[in-house]
Amino acid sequence: MMKLYYGPGACSFVPHAGLEAIRAATGASFEAQPVKLHKGEQHSPEYLALNPLGLVPVLVVDGKPLNQIIAICDYLDRSHPQAGLLPADSWRRAEALSLFAWMNNTVHPTFTHIFRAAKFAEGEAAQAEVKRSALAMFRGQLERIQTMAAKASPFLLGDRLCFVDAYALVFLRWAGLAGIDPAGLPVYQDYVQRLAAVPSIAAAIAREGIDLNTYKKK
Amino acid sequence: MMKLYYGPGACSFVPHAGLEAIRAATGASFEAQPVKLHKGEQHSPEYLALNPLGLVPVLVVDGKPLNQIIAICDYLDRSHPQAGLLPADSWRRAEALSLFAWMNNTVHPTFTHIFRAAKFAEGEAAQAEVKRSALAMFRGQLERIQTMAAKASPFLLGDRLCFVDAYALVFLRWAGLAGIDPAGLPVYQDYVQRLAAVPSIAAAIAREGIDLNTYKKK
Repeated sequence: MMKLYYGPGACSFVPHAGLEAIRAATGASFEAQPVKLHKGEQHSPEYLALNPLGLVPVLVVDGKPLNQIIAICDYLDRSHPQAGLLPADSWRRAEALSLFAWMNNTVHPTFTHIFRAAKFAEGEAAQAEVKRSALAMFRGQLERIQTMAAKASPFLLGDRLCFVDAYALVFLRWAGLAGIDPAGLPVYQDYVQRLAAVPSIAAAIAREGIDLNTYKKK
Repeated sequence: MMKLYYGPGACSFVPHAGLEAIRAATGASFEAQPVKLHKGEQHSPEYLALNPLGLVPVLVVDGKPLNQIIAICDYLDRSHPQAGLLPADSWRRAEALSLFAWMNNTVHPTFTHIFRAAKFAEGEAAQAEVKRSALAMFRGQLERIQTMAAKASPFLLGDRLCFVDAYALVFLRWAGLAGIDPAGLPVYQDYVQRLAAVPSIAAAIAREGIDLNTYKKK
């Protein structure tokens, strides 16, 4: 039995949607355990035993914990290839992992600079500068994803849903939280709206209880 | 034919050492093309055609470019499993990728904040704060790797050299550049000294023309 610890709206949405797609394709069931990040549940002794870094997600398989979404998703795909969540062709799989890695080591941490600037500088003035720089970079990264979304047919990598699609959806939600109006990225927004109608994505959104549009006009 | 574009001492050392290990295990040859990062060669039109982000490494296989070291290394392992650069066992492979992902999305970018603080804040005072915070985080991350190195037998994941070992070596070189005396991390330093004697690692070090000890006493 697989058990996913996730934080609603966090990057754990990526394996969460993947697990729903795997259930739809293979019937393999899983347990989904929300972690209340705002209440600090990720710092409890029980949780730190699963992930000493206190981050979501953790996938527990047969009692053993696995951290890091790239490792979790690669494992999910290798153990459930029928779901086709990463391309079967060796080179196309490498290209998918390349995009996934960029999202994970560049786009994701850029948002962290906006959302948790205090992690990167002590003083308030320095934190404001960190946020400003990160916001400019994040906009550029979202534009790059929009360019990819313009060629989606209907998914970023072709006719199969991939983990990178779920990550792209997460980033547009985060953009709204960062004060970026998704209406300014209309092609990206349309693509995410279509994604949200895919049953496995819709199921993960419903369980996490999250809204697609997080943007609030000032 | 495979061709690796690398910057001496950069994270491209990880697939570079991997390619040497693959050559030793299978006879598969590769071409190694240095990119002079200090001269900005990564921003040339020719290079940007391979990687629009202007980063090393790029692995070109049959004329097609692949970016991101996790994607490159996963591809190298899947196409040359005889070299054993990632564990063959499915769960142990997932754990190796988890460690690799942490190095790639956390340790590596933390050093970038020290080395290229201007990327993260405009003003000099804010940049100094970014550096100070990053230096504290980087020390903690190196301590965590040292804890793993204390159990290395002789490699981080057991008796086979893995990409994560090469990454660990890169980080200790970077620590020296960041002003951290490696003598303060004696177990880590010993482990890296042993790594440097492994023929495939030694071959990559020699071709890149890099010194293991980058630390200069002030």
